[in-house]
Amino acid sequence: MHRSPHALDFFKAREQFLAGADTPSDYLERCIATIESRDRDVHAFVTLGLENARRAADLATSRYRAGTPLSPVDGMPIGVKDIMDTADLPTQMGNPIYKGWRPRWDAACVHALRSGGAIVVGKTVTTAFAGGATNETRNPLDVTRTPGGSSSGSAAAVGAGMVPAALGTQTQGSTLRPAGFCGAFGFKPTHAALTMQGIHPITVTHDHLGVIAGSLEDLWSVASRVAMASGGTPGSAGLHGAGETLPPPRRPRKLVVMHTEAWNTEVDERTRASFDTLCSALRSRGVEVISSRDDANFASFEDAFFGPFAERSVDISAYEMKWPYEQYLATHPDLLEARQKQRLARAAEMTPAIYAERLAEKAAMKERAKQAMADADAILTLSSSGPAPVGHANTGSRTYLLFASFLHLPAFSLPLLESQGMPVGAQLIGHAGRDGDLCSAARWIAEAMS
Amino acid sequence: MHRSPHALDFFKAREQFLAGADTPSDYLERCIATIESRDRDVHAFVTLGLENARRAADLATSRYRAGTPLSPVDGMPIGVKDIMDTADLPTQMGNPIYKGWRPRWDAACVHALRSGGAIVVGKTVTTAFAGGATNETRNPLDVTRTPGGSSSGSAAAVGAGMVPAALGTQTQGSTLRPAGFCGAFGFKPTHAALTMQGIHPITVTHDHLGVIAGSLEDLWSVASRVAMASGGTPGSAGLHGAGETLPPPRRPRKLVVMHTEAWNTEVDERTRASFDTLCSALRSRGVEVISSRDDANFASFEDAFFGPFAERSVDISAYEMKWPYEQYLATHPDLLEARQKQRLARAAEMTPAIYAERLAEKAAMKERAKQAMADADAILTLSSSGPAPVGHANTGSRTYLLFASFLHLPAFSLPLLESQGMPVGAQLIGHAGRDGDLCSAARWIAEAMS
Repeated sequence: MHRSPHALDFFKAREQFLAGADTPSDYLERCIATIESRDRDVHAFVTLGLENARRAADLATSRYRAGTPLSPVDGMPIGVKDIMDTADLPTQMGNPIYKGWRPRWDAACVHALRSGGAIVVGKTVTTAFAGGATNETRNPLDVTRTPGGSSSGSAAAVGAGMVPAALGTQTQGSTLRPAGFCGAFGFKPTHAALTMQGIHPITVTHDHLGVIAGSLEDLWSVASRVAMASGGTPGSAGLHGAGETLPPPRRPRKLVVMHTEAWNTEVDERTRASFDTLCSALRSRGVEVISSRDDANFASFEDAFFGPFAERSVDISAYEMKWPYEQYLATHPDLLEARQKQRLARAAEMTPAIYAERLAEKAAMKERAKQAMADADAILTLSSSGPAPVGHANTGSRTYLLFASFLHLPAFSLPLLESQGMPVGAQLIGHAGRDGDLCSAARWIAEAMS
Repeated sequence: MHRSPHALDFFKAREQFLAGADTPSDYLERCIATIESRDRDVHAFVTLGLENARRAADLATSRYRAGTPLSPVDGMPIGVKDIMDTADLPTQMGNPIYKGWRPRWDAACVHALRSGGAIVVGKTVTTAFAGGATNETRNPLDVTRTPGGSSSGSAAAVGAGMVPAALGTQTQGSTLRPAGFCGAFGFKPTHAALTMQGIHPITVTHDHLGVIAGSLEDLWSVASRVAMASGGTPGSAGLHGAGETLPPPRRPRKLVVMHTEAWNTEVDERTRASFDTLCSALRSRGVEVISSRDDANFASFEDAFFGPFAERSVDISAYEMKWPYEQYLATHPDLLEARQKQRLARAAEMTPAIYAERLAEKAAMKERAKQAMADADAILTLSSSGPAPVGHANTGSRTYLLFASFLHLPAFSLPLLESQGMPVGAQLIGHAGRDGDLCSAARWIAEAMS
């Protein structure tokens, strides 16, 4: 029903570049043709930089001809979320405060990709400061539906086949949700495993760099290039499993299924059936798939997470928004959304001691997650409570996304489910710092189900 | 010999503001008069913002008249190191790459101070990117000497009595060394206890916000205001002991004196005598002062620190400079100094695994420091290997400064020593996360020795 995730595989095209049967310039032109035919309706890009892109593609073409590509992403056209600094394109944060803003330097992730030969095709639409409710982007698989947010344009560009991969960010659900809604693979690493330097913050201890791609291979190439060339956020050991090739597929021994209360209150019947079918298929292939409710230790941890903890974690976000949002509020009060103002009002009430207490609660909950997950390879759940909703009033529910984001755990969204003729993502959540192992499990599942 | 540290005490002037006997506007004019008479020779400021400063002082004057000051720093003129973003003044990083650069927003520390009524008088001279060797600033106590670096202008402005306090940063020794050379109090907190957001990085896991002031009271007011209004770097619990008043003086029970090998190779006789006199005076007041060499556990830790560890920690700095310095090197190769280029060359050789290994070594050494210091209130050592050197070819030795910076420990420089008619700082290094306790000890020592 939805676009095959492999329609624009860069890793396959790259074999042709190396064989002399295709070139990065031709590949880019195919991307541009799709942008020209689709983006009038989809609105994935806020700014295009085609002249520089074509120049970069020509250089990549020369390197492949000479047999000297710079890296596995050399010649790969990518979309860059418009909260990431780019030296040659405006960076406008989805908010008029930054209309026409030109940073002087590339964000560390953009620099890593460009220094490896990747080609920035343009900046993709984001909700305001990656935290707002809605924007002009449409779901490429059904333009009456939201593409999800906040990395709306990145997911839509990949879902429409305009680029093989794009950069996003995730604070609560901003990478995996739109990836799932647009039928793409999504990945957010262990917190800080990929550098956030030069990206506009929402809340530093919840913000993650994310990657959205048409294939796991291209997704991992992009993540690995950032990890190898620029590393993690300073102080982080970086991305586990990063390298020039995708980690080998490995069948998970045991998965814990987390349905959450939203299963009965938010999720449609067809999505539930599709998810149940996936669980059965995994069981039939020898994976132990248990419900989180059948593990008393896990269930009690899960209840603690989805209880007051998740709510109180919002205090952390609020407190960390003080800089620079207090200055936006002071200078442009009309340009912040109600939710952002509420957060700042909460932050103003908070003391450093309350913030420190919330951080301590979070550290304790992360430790509890480690214990609860010790016996399993990963958690399996949904990337959203169903397919992309019809309408554009909001970018969808975050219920299924808070868990991995707040607990800093690596997570993939795999385009394996469907409902209403639309894709729905299955979310695989792994152990902190073992992103490569999770990728092996994700790869095995994706290949087993294809 | 050197300027009394209390010549420009803001906390005393503030009592007069509250009593109606003085005003922030008059206080600012006295600062400006000193700037006008001294800065031609001292070159502490790279940019002055006197018009905005006078306007801000008038507002503060009105608030004191109305009995509604915003905070303990309301009306305090401050200098801001020119690697910290200011929305109303250029931020030029001490390097021509940033000539005329105008950020759009204040760094979080500047925002915190301004929102509490503090007045930014101007931007103070820094060495290039806070890492370079030298600049145009002169020591206000003897202009034939260096003021130290990299927070040269901040220390010189305070030392000359142009402002009661100024912001600096410390990566290796950039706050405590110039504070000591210019006869001021200096403080660098536990790493990340004061936010670095909006400040140009050298190496994020070694960079600290620092404060230089003519008195401990003003120093702590500034640090506390930043802590209360903007907090620490996200993820940090913030500044221990922050509040509206200086922590009470408390006699330390036990101090460990760390002479280091530089005592015999770098330190002049008069500085050694002055330091020995301080130790004797503390002993005579009931403080147990022992040599680090008399504690086998501590001595072995100290040797490990000053051996390969300190050298290998430079790898961390190199790796973290990749962003954004790789882009400076690519675009302006002639504008980086040789040491910066050497670091980038080292970074290019490093893998993520080497970086991760260095971080792990550092974590282990921090744990070892905790054990070695468990029985003592603080470490007592020098802030420099003597008074400010004559000449301007470099900003002085870092030997005594690496320890607290690399291990993330809070440290004060107290202007209690002298040599060659110049001040020399005594450095007091405390336990991570117990900055307020260290301030109590520093206060007791400063008061006992005055």
